[in-house]
Amino acid sequence: MKSAIEAVYHIRCAAAEAEARALAVAVEQSVEMPVVAIEDERVLGEIVGEVRGVRELKPGLFEARIGLNVETTGHDAGQLINMLFGNASLLEDVVLADASFPAETLAAFGGPRHGLAALRARVGAQGRALTSSALKPQGMPAAKLVDLARRFAEGGVDYIKDDHGLADQAYSPFAERVAAVAAALRASGARTRYVPSLTGDFRAIEAQLRVAREAGIDTVMLAPMVSGLSNMQALVRGNSDMALLAHPSLGGAARIAPPLLIGKLFRLIGAGAVVFPNYGGRFGYSRDTCRALARAALDPWGGLEPAVPVPAGGMTLARVPELLDFYGAEVMLLIGGNLLAARERLVDETAAFVSSVERYSYG
Amino acid sequence: MKSAIEAVYHIRCAAAEAEARALAVAVEQSVEMPVVAIEDERVLGEIVGEVRGVRELKPGLFEARIGLNVETTGHDAGQLINMLFGNASLLEDVVLADASFPAETLAAFGGPRHGLAALRARVGAQGRALTSSALKPQGMPAAKLVDLARRFAEGGVDYIKDDHGLADQAYSPFAERVAAVAAALRASGARTRYVPSLTGDFRAIEAQLRVAREAGIDTVMLAPMVSGLSNMQALVRGNSDMALLAHPSLGGAARIAPPLLIGKLFRLIGAGAVVFPNYGGRFGYSRDTCRALARAALDPWGGLEPAVPVPAGGMTLARVPELLDFYGAEVMLLIGGNLLAARERLVDETAAFVSSVERYSYG
Repeated sequence: MKSAIEAVYHIRCAAAEAEARALAVAVEQSVEMPVVAIEDERVLGEIVGEVRGVRELKPGLFEARIGLNVETTGHDAGQLINMLFGNASLLEDVVLADASFPAETLAAFGGPRHGLAALRARVGAQGRALTSSALKPQGMPAAKLVDLARRFAEGGVDYIKDDHGLADQAYSPFAERVAAVAAALRASGARTRYVPSLTGDFRAIEAQLRVAREAGIDTVMLAPMVSGLSNMQALVRGNSDMALLAHPSLGGAARIAPPLLIGKLFRLIGAGAVVFPNYGGRFGYSRDTCRALARAALDPWGGLEPAVPVPAGGMTLARVPELLDFYGAEVMLLIGGNLLAARERLVDETAAFVSSVERYSYG
Repeated sequence: MKSAIEAVYHIRCAAAEAEARALAVAVEQSVEMPVVAIEDERVLGEIVGEVRGVRELKPGLFEARIGLNVETTGHDAGQLINMLFGNASLLEDVVLADASFPAETLAAFGGPRHGLAALRARVGAQGRALTSSALKPQGMPAAKLVDLARRFAEGGVDYIKDDHGLADQAYSPFAERVAAVAAALRASGARTRYVPSLTGDFRAIEAQLRVAREAGIDTVMLAPMVSGLSNMQALVRGNSDMALLAHPSLGGAARIAPPLLIGKLFRLIGAGAVVFPNYGGRFGYSRDTCRALARAALDPWGGLEPAVPVPAGGMTLARVPELLDFYGAEVMLLIGGNLLAARERLVDETAAFVSSVERYSYG
């Protein structure tokens, strides 16, 4: 196989079966048919997945490294995930643990158009972490969300994203909400950026993006696993002025290792910032998983822009120093519900969050 | 809550935590913020998820029934899955086990436009199971796939679908493959229908669908979890002449119960036939799961057309009577690789498959 993606699977099985299971996954994720029935020499030599190594990680758990021909992906993001984990996702004892990609894949997808540096520049932040919060709860009319956005901006937060539950519902239509929030932030004179969440089919998403652009917005959010990775790819390609923040909704727990899915793949396809459930919050990701995810988003990778890790999911003001100790300056901290819980003290609480991030001594 | 979706979650936790965990899931899947911080009476009364019951299924496993306001979905399929399981998918100990929907959801999505009856009528089948096979492996040029299709048709199979690995790759471009296969089947005079797989972003999918329609094709395949449920919804709405077969790629194992995802949700959004990994094949679905999935696809459901269950994944000719005993006449049997393994005897093996299905005594 000339140019290959190397996918790493973790397979739970007996030691005696490990080699056969690895081969079965290699076949499932490539030709999906009995190899003995393949007559075509090119398919046998170039297309059938190639088991490159199997090793025991611990009793009953094996790592299989499998080469997949990059041509099978057609450089389409949906087909990429289909080849990496489409059918294998239906195997309960198989996890997609990691993957590495040849240079042509990186060049074809291109990574973030607006990553860490651009997201800092937009809000005039230098050498520090970024701050963000979320508009919620859904169910409130646009006017109340506008009021909330105004108070977050008064507190000085860098980015305000839609809660991923906000869509285009009858009680808060997208176009009305986005125009109103954007106008309020413009009027406030703050540098705060509003990041609306794009939802629906791809035409709806494109229409929403046009509404956002007309309102002067330059950063949008998408949940790639809900909207489809290919659509994210098309959105990034077709809108080079827009920074994209990826939301992990429907990202599953552990069937695809979060550092791969959220850190690597979302970055590869063009997310400039990636939201993920932080350790010690409402979700079960470990410190190691979060560290690996942040490194995958940030580390040098064939010339791709770094994407900003956005740990979230029950973060609190009290944890800011600990989170900055852990992540350093290359992070966007997101505190949503816990700022909202301050209610009439929301502006002060937001200002305290912003101040805590700005005064921190970055090493 | 006036009009509600009722979602059923299975939560692994200690008995003392079950009520609190259920409440946490209800909040996560609706307002996603501390309820104490919500001031809006309407949100508190109408939008916050409502725990309707918690019961122990077995020690350490609890069922929580949660009401979710149907307005939060905006009748968009992506937002529907986002509300059902978006963030909860990131909780390792939570499974989405089932859901029931109010009449307005069924009316808004509309189910299959071409279900069991239409898929039978297209190939002149009456009161019997349907037969199908798959074009593969990927990596073969269009001419070889055409030859394969011709031989399947000569054997008399009802439907030939693309393997879900076939996309729009350089070695077998979609437009070339589809035009050539369709022309060969037309020339053969057989009733056999070709079902090409649509991939890529939504614009690419629409362009492929136009190519298919121009070639006289009236049934297409999509992998909804790869392409995005909202895009599937838009595709079904915008193309009322096309039957749609849904492929389970990236459908995960067990995090969303297969009868719900593949049987109910894919049908709700418009799949006329749903492929799933059958028991006793290469995947681990149980007989009970497969039976429940088939019933969810077929059972009367508020006037929605039944969708055809398509058990697959390592099926063999020898198992046809057993599969028909199990599923009855309302099924499409799919034998892919095991027909291909017959190589030069492919036409005879296909004819034997077709004959076995036609001669079976349906009760």
